[in-house]
Amino acid sequence: MDPTLAGDVVRAGSRARERFYDSRGYGRPVGGDLELAPVEAAHLLYRGDLDSVDGMDFRAFLASAAVPEVAFFVYKDLRDRGFYLSPAREGWVDDPAGADFVVYPRGKGPWDDAVAHRVRVAGERETVPATALGASVLAVVDEESEITYLETDRPDVDGTSDADVPPAEGDLLAERVVCWDPPADLYERAFYGQRLGDDEAVQLSLVEAAYLAQRGSLSVDGGEAALLERGREVEGDRFDRRLAVYADLRERGVVPKTGFKFGADFRTYADVDGVDDLGHSELLVRVIAADHEFAPRDLALDVRLAHGVRKTMTFALVGDDGIDWVSVERLTP
Amino acid sequence: MDPTLAGDVVRAGSRARERFYDSRGYGRPVGGDLELAPVEAAHLLYRGDLDSVDGMDFRAFLASAAVPEVAFFVYKDLRDRGFYLSPAREGWVDDPAGADFVVYPRGKGPWDDAVAHRVRVAGERETVPATALGASVLAVVDEESEITYLETDRPDVDGTSDADVPPAEGDLLAERVVCWDPPADLYERAFYGQRLGDDEAVQLSLVEAAYLAQRGSLSVDGGEAALLERGREVEGDRFDRRLAVYADLRERGVVPKTGFKFGADFRTYADVDGVDDLGHSELLVRVIAADHEFAPRDLALDVRLAHGVRKTMTFALVGDDGIDWVSVERLTP
Repeated sequence: MDPTLAGDVVRAGSRARERFYDSRGYGRPVGGDLELAPVEAAHLLYRGDLDSVDGMDFRAFLASAAVPEVAFFVYKDLRDRGFYLSPAREGWVDDPAGADFVVYPRGKGPWDDAVAHRVRVAGERETVPATALGASVLAVVDEESEITYLETDRPDVDGTSDADVPPAEGDLLAERVVCWDPPADLYERAFYGQRLGDDEAVQLSLVEAAYLAQRGSLSVDGGEAALLERGREVEGDRFDRRLAVYADLRERGVVPKTGFKFGADFRTYADVDGVDDLGHSELLVRVIAADHEFAPRDLALDVRLAHGVRKTMTFALVGDDGIDWVSVERLTP
Repeated sequence: MDPTLAGDVVRAGSRARERFYDSRGYGRPVGGDLELAPVEAAHLLYRGDLDSVDGMDFRAFLASAAVPEVAFFVYKDLRDRGFYLSPAREGWVDDPAGADFVVYPRGKGPWDDAVAHRVRVAGERETVPATALGASVLAVVDEESEITYLETDRPDVDGTSDADVPPAEGDLLAERVVCWDPPADLYERAFYGQRLGDDEAVQLSLVEAAYLAQRGSLSVDGGEAALLERGREVEGDRFDRRLAVYADLRERGVVPKTGFKFGADFRTYADVDGVDDLGHSELLVRVIAADHEFAPRDLALDVRLAHGVRKTMTFALVGDDGIDWVSVERLTP
C-alpha cells in the first residue's frame, strides 16, 4: 500500500479505511475509500503502520512541507494519551473554525457525536490573538517540543460584595489619595484602600479613588477630572482600561485589590462582608486591550503562577464594545 | 521646637540631636545641631515626635513636594521592622551611589560601621535599569503602598557538567533539528535535546543545534550558517543573545534546558552526569539586553514564580562586553 499525497490529503484506498478508520479513527471515509490528513499519515508512518507515502518514509515526510512539525507533535501526544482525534477541516468535523483538532472523549471516535476538546496548536514563538481564546484548548509546543495544554473559557465573574459607601474626602498625593478621616465602612466593610498606619487614615490607589469619585463617594481637590488626569499621566491608556475593569468588577459584586505581587493588575474577592473575614482571593486579573496578541510564554508564566497560588488566571479584554472575560488554566488531557 | 525646611534638609537644633540622633539614629549631626532629611522629618511628624516643620503638620508635609510618598512608606516600613536607617546622601553615608537608604543591622545605627542592606526605592510604575541591580535591595511600592523587597546579587554561575559529545548528523525541520541516529552520549550523558519517541532519534532546539554546530559536533545541510539564519528568522535579535547565554552556560559546566513552562528562557542543571539522575534544576534564566529596563511588576512575577518552584531567578544581561549575571530573590527584611 503506497498512499498518494494529493494537495492537502493523502488518498489511502479501501483496505486502509477498514484498518485505520473503522478500528482506530484515522481519516475521513470518502465513498469506500479513505482520505487521511498529512498529520494522520505522518503518525501512521511514525508507527510503522504505513511504510511510505508517495515514496517518502517517515523521515522524508516529516522533513517535507506536507506536515507542520508542531501539529505532528500534538497529534502524537494526544494519541499517546489514548485519544482519537480528527483534523478540524471543513467537511471533516462540525464547526472547524478556530481549532486545529477535534478530540473525542476516550473510547469515542469520529463516528460518535461527543467532543472532549477543541484544540488549537501554536509554536511557542507564534503569537495568539486574545480573541481566539475562550472556547478551546491551546496546545503550545515549546522549542524542545514539550507541550503545554491551556484550557480557555469564558467565565461568569460575579460576587456578592457591596460597592456602596458613604462619601469621603481625601488629599491627592503623587500616585495615591489619603483620606485622613474616612467613614469606617470605606475600608472595613467595602474594602477600599489600605490603612496608612495604626490610626483611621486610609490610602486609596488612583484607580480606587477615580472609581469612588465617579460614583460621587469621594471628593478631592479638582474632583474626578484631577484623578483621571493623574492616572493617565502615570499609566497612559492603561489607566482607562484598568478603571473600566475595576468598575465592572465592583458592579459585579467583586472586590478588586492590587495583583502586583502576582504580576497581575488585580486579585479579586467575590464575597466581602468586611476586612476581618476576607478569605482567599479567587482570581488574578490581567487587563489587556481586546486586540492584544499573547506571546505563549507570557501565558504560560501567568497560568503557572496563578496555579501555584490557587487562583484562576483571568484576562479582561477591553474593547470598544465592553469587556470580555477569558480564563486560562493548565490542562492535563 | 519648630524645625525649618532649608532646601533638602530640615534643621532641627541641638535638643533634637540628643533626642533623635543619639538615641534613635535619625539625621546627621552637624556641629552640635541636627540635620534631618525630609523623609526622616516626615516620620517624626507621623509618630508625633515633631508637631510641625515650617508650620506644616504631617498631613501638610506629606502633601507638599518635600518628601516623595514612596520613600516615606519604605522608611516607615523599615523603622516598623526595627531597623535604623539613613538616607543615602553624599556626606551622610559612605558610598551613597545607587541607593536611597542605607539600613543598619538591628541594634546598630549610623554611629556603627555595619550595613545590613542598601535599599533602592521604586514605585511600581517606574522602570528600573537592569544595570542598577546586583548589589542592592529593590523596595517596590505598589499602587496600594504594599512593599515588595527584592534582593539582587551577582551570583557565581557554574557547574560540573561536560559539554563535549561525539559528532552527530541531523535534519533541519522548521524550528528544530532531528538527529535520527545520534551517539548515545548526545542525550543520555550530555543532555542535549529530547527523545522524539521511543526509538533513538533525538530532537534538538535551534539554540542547542547552533551551539553544537559551532563546536563542530553537529552537521546539518547548510551547516552552522543555516541554523543561525533560521534562528534569526524565527526569533530576531533574541536568538543571538540566547545563543550567547546558552554557550556561556555550557562553558561554565551548566546545562540549560528550555524554561518555557516557567516563562523563562532556560532552567539550568549544574551537575549533570546523565539524564537518568538529573535532580532538580537550580536556576531560571531570562536573557535580556544589557540596556533593558525592568517594569517592577514583571520582576515581581518572575521572582514569585521562581520562588514557588524552588529555583533562583537569574538574569543574563547581554552587552557588547559580554554577559553579566544578576540574581533576584524575595527578601523579608
